[in-house]
Amino acid sequence: MADEPALSAGIAFAPAEASAVVARRRVIGWGGAGVVLGATAGGSAVAAVRSDNGTRTAAAAGEAVAFHGTHQAGIVTPVQDRLHFAAFDITTDDRDEIVRLLKDWTAAARLMAEGRPVGEGAVGGLAEAPPDDTGEALGLQPSRLTLTVGFGPGLFSRLGLSRPEALVDLPKFPGDALDTRRSGGDLCVQACADDPQVAVHAIRNLARIGFGKVAVRWSQLGFGKTSSTTPEAQTPRNLMGFKDGTHNVAGSDRAAQSKHVWVAQKDGPAWMAGGSYLVARRIRMHIETWDRTSLKEQEDVFGRTKGEGAPIGRKRERDTPDFRAMKADAHVRLAHPDNSGATILRRGYSFTDGTDGLGRLEAGLFFLAYQRDVRSGFISLQKQLAKHDALNEYIQHVGSAVFAVPPGVSGSDDWWGRTLFETAEGA
Amino acid sequence: MADEPALSAGIAFAPAEASAVVARRRVIGWGGAGVVLGATAGGSAVAAVRSDNGTRTAAAAGEAVAFHGTHQAGIVTPVQDRLHFAAFDITTDDRDEIVRLLKDWTAAARLMAEGRPVGEGAVGGLAEAPPDDTGEALGLQPSRLTLTVGFGPGLFSRLGLSRPEALVDLPKFPGDALDTRRSGGDLCVQACADDPQVAVHAIRNLARIGFGKVAVRWSQLGFGKTSSTTPEAQTPRNLMGFKDGTHNVAGSDRAAQSKHVWVAQKDGPAWMAGGSYLVARRIRMHIETWDRTSLKEQEDVFGRTKGEGAPIGRKRERDTPDFRAMKADAHVRLAHPDNSGATILRRGYSFTDGTDGLGRLEAGLFFLAYQRDVRSGFISLQKQLAKHDALNEYIQHVGSAVFAVPPGVSGSDDWWGRTLFETAEGA
Ligand code: HEM
Ligand code: HEM
Repeated sequence: MADEPALSAGIAFAPAEASAVVARRRVIGWGGAGVVLGATAGGSAVAAVRSDNGTRTAAAAGEAVAFHGTHQAGIVTPVQDRLHFAAFDITTDDRDEIVRLLKDWTAAARLMAEGRPVGEGAVGGLAEAPPDDTGEALGLQPSRLTLTVGFGPGLFSRLGLSRPEALVDLPKFPGDALDTRRSGGDLCVQACADDPQVAVHAIRNLARIGFGKVAVRWSQLGFGKTSSTTPEAQTPRNLMGFKDGTHNVAGSDRAAQSKHVWVAQKDGPAWMAGGSYLVARRIRMHIETWDRTSLKEQEDVFGRTKGEGAPIGRKRERDTPDFRAMKADAHVRLAHPDNSGATILRRGYSFTDGTDGLGRLEAGLFFLAYQRDVRSGFISLQKQLAKHDALNEYIQHVGSAVFAVPPGVSGSDDWWGRTLFETAEGA
Repeated sequence: MADEPALSAGIAFAPAEASAVVARRRVIGWGGAGVVLGATAGGSAVAAVRSDNGTRTAAAAGEAVAFHGTHQAGIVTPVQDRLHFAAFDITTDDRDEIVRLLKDWTAAARLMAEGRPVGEGAVGGLAEAPPDDTGEALGLQPSRLTLTVGFGPGLFSRLGLSRPEALVDLPKFPGDALDTRRSGGDLCVQACADDPQVAVHAIRNLARIGFGKVAVRWSQLGFGKTSSTTPEAQTPRNLMGFKDGTHNVAGSDRAAQSKHVWVAQKDGPAWMAGGSYLVARRIRMHIETWDRTSLKEQEDVFGRTKGEGAPIGRKRERDTPDFRAMKADAHVRLAHPDNSGATILRRGYSFTDGTDGLGRLEAGLFFLAYQRDVRSGFISLQKQLAKHDALNEYIQHVGSAVFAVPPGVSGSDDWWGRTLFETAEGA
């Protein structure tokens, strides 16, 4: 916690669990013609610091998630309903330009996380100049927006920086059918919010700030969360109709997070301490085939019941699984840490993107997983799954990317990636 | 109102404004392992009838919109937050198969609108058989789901039926860059709901029921409503950052609806009485260009201010426009009924679908408009706009379709399209 929370006029903080709650309407004071938005936001240091224990489960839809913290928000933060994810190609070789970009992105993200417009706002500034903010989120709540930045392999090679050892290229797994136009990226931003317009607005404004330095390589809209990181009243269902996220690293389980999600100082490189590694996989579901499969086969594939989500042979969703009651190739059996030896934090979203030209809906899971090391995390798991998982008959991995997610922005003087660019390692 | 509302056990009706409010949880009685979903839903006639005056503005997110009524729901219904729209090609020449399909679709839609699963549900029926419902909406609220069906030109030619005169092919407008893979369709379903998973689930289950008779030609996800049909606390904003829907046919304005939205008996054909015509246009926004445009130019383009949404020269959003204060080519000036002579009901959604391969976000407006006659409605308007609208510099129409939207399903024995297929006109 590098900063003291500083209060600025017109902003309401809810003391509960040290998380700042900012009502967008209050900040903007929006009401009549000619109001200059964001004018009060200029230089004020609104440094709300997250508790980072993620235990806040009853967040109201309109709330703000604090931007500052030891770790970036959007990882152990209770999963928001919607996602807009973008991967960028860097289009400059000038390291300083990228540093400038990351500083500008941080400033903009800090404002947007509070539900404020970027810079002078959408109707502030000079009428003769393009507005700083594109405006479509004016009047909307912060909607628990989190923005999480990651560095792809290309960032390191392009800027002559040394790449973290744990940021390995993923091997080609059996069954992969990766589309390069939906894979890779030198930088990524994960925007999660309960209102999709807020997430879309955030990515768009960051893309705009990046003009001339980065270009959007691919982007993905996720309309519904799957995995949750909080035991909820109701675990969300994926497009196969199953509860998804029952057994995951909980946002409240700091011990598991330290062990499996956050990079430790001793892991190296030092600038990644408090960070994590992100694997993104676009996984297409053959939903037409799935929909023609019997209920029993569907339940055997996952090793859980469809209605309750209980492990096969058990009664309740959270009952301890009995692996002997499951088929040997059941997804849950193969993926469970006891059998796979790997623990990752899943944070995926369902997607549907039109049709495939054969009269079928193009739909599936945009799989996002955070881990301390990609080798002992995703790769170790997916090696097993790609070979044996009964689910493989119904899915195909069509996009893939991997990113080093630096630690959080500690306060108002800090910025995304500072630990990399301002240390010996980054020099 | 062809049916008496019939109550069935476990379903709660709120008497307010004759609109049935069904809490999904209550219907499903969801709670423990082994509960057979939908078992009570089988043959019961839950015939809630809408008031059709659309005045219900304070609908809670979880509510159900009644499926039965003089008109189809989803037209003057207060606009829901999210959209999934699908256009289908008919893949059979057998008229009876299409009648069967429409009956099956009606039955499924009736259940889904109440927040119930299709048929025996996702975990009902035989374990050895594929479930009737795909399951991903289990446990979700009805979310004001509406399903609205339309018939494209191809339906009439393919099945040898005579096509309504008002269902004309749209002329090619200046600037059109239509992609055939995003245009046309013999049938369409518009699914609107406050929860996108509910809308996606509905389209998917209808597509599944249609297997072998229809194939999805194209589909479109809309993540945020633009035009509203109810004066709301806050008019939604489109991706250009402007309030969109300020001046529209209100859901409460029955006189305007009769005049401009609903097909009258005397208009012919008789089977379309109480129906409407739908024009769908996928309109790409050149958001990067737009974002580099000055605030003044942006406001001149629309003829309204960006912050408040007031007509240029006026103060408040709902002030009467002064057209002399606007530029001659301002969008609002050209489009206003006083100048265009046309009135349509707009019901569009913002979309974003990845990137265009040039580092730009593919985003825009999925424009949906309902009208009594396409010639005096959309065509008349768009002829003006395509030629003169200042907005044209920043947009491009890339998809187009037109549908005859039959009247509502009056009760539990009725089905979508019955008036067409069971009358002389349809014979
Ligand atoms: C479309 C693809 C996938 C679908 C539909 C899917 C679905 C599910 C479901 C329904 C569960 C059981 C509920 C739960 O505990 O969350 C589950 C568990 C799990 N999945 Fe997946 N999954 C997919 C891909 C993957 C991939 C690619 C990985 C990792 C490489 C993975 C790792 C896991 C893990 C670690 C668990 C928890 C197992 C346990 O500890 O019990 N899944 N998945
Ligand atoms: C991307 C394309 C478009 C955008 C961004 C857009 C945006 C807007 C905005 C911001 C308004 C003012 C607020 C309001 O009254 O709702 C408006 C009004 C309107 N627009 Fe559009 N529009 C688009 C395309 C079209 C098209 C294609 C048509 C019809 C052919 C149309 C017809 C209208 C009408 C009838 C009005 C109301 C004018 C009045 O009565 O004051 N718009 N539009």
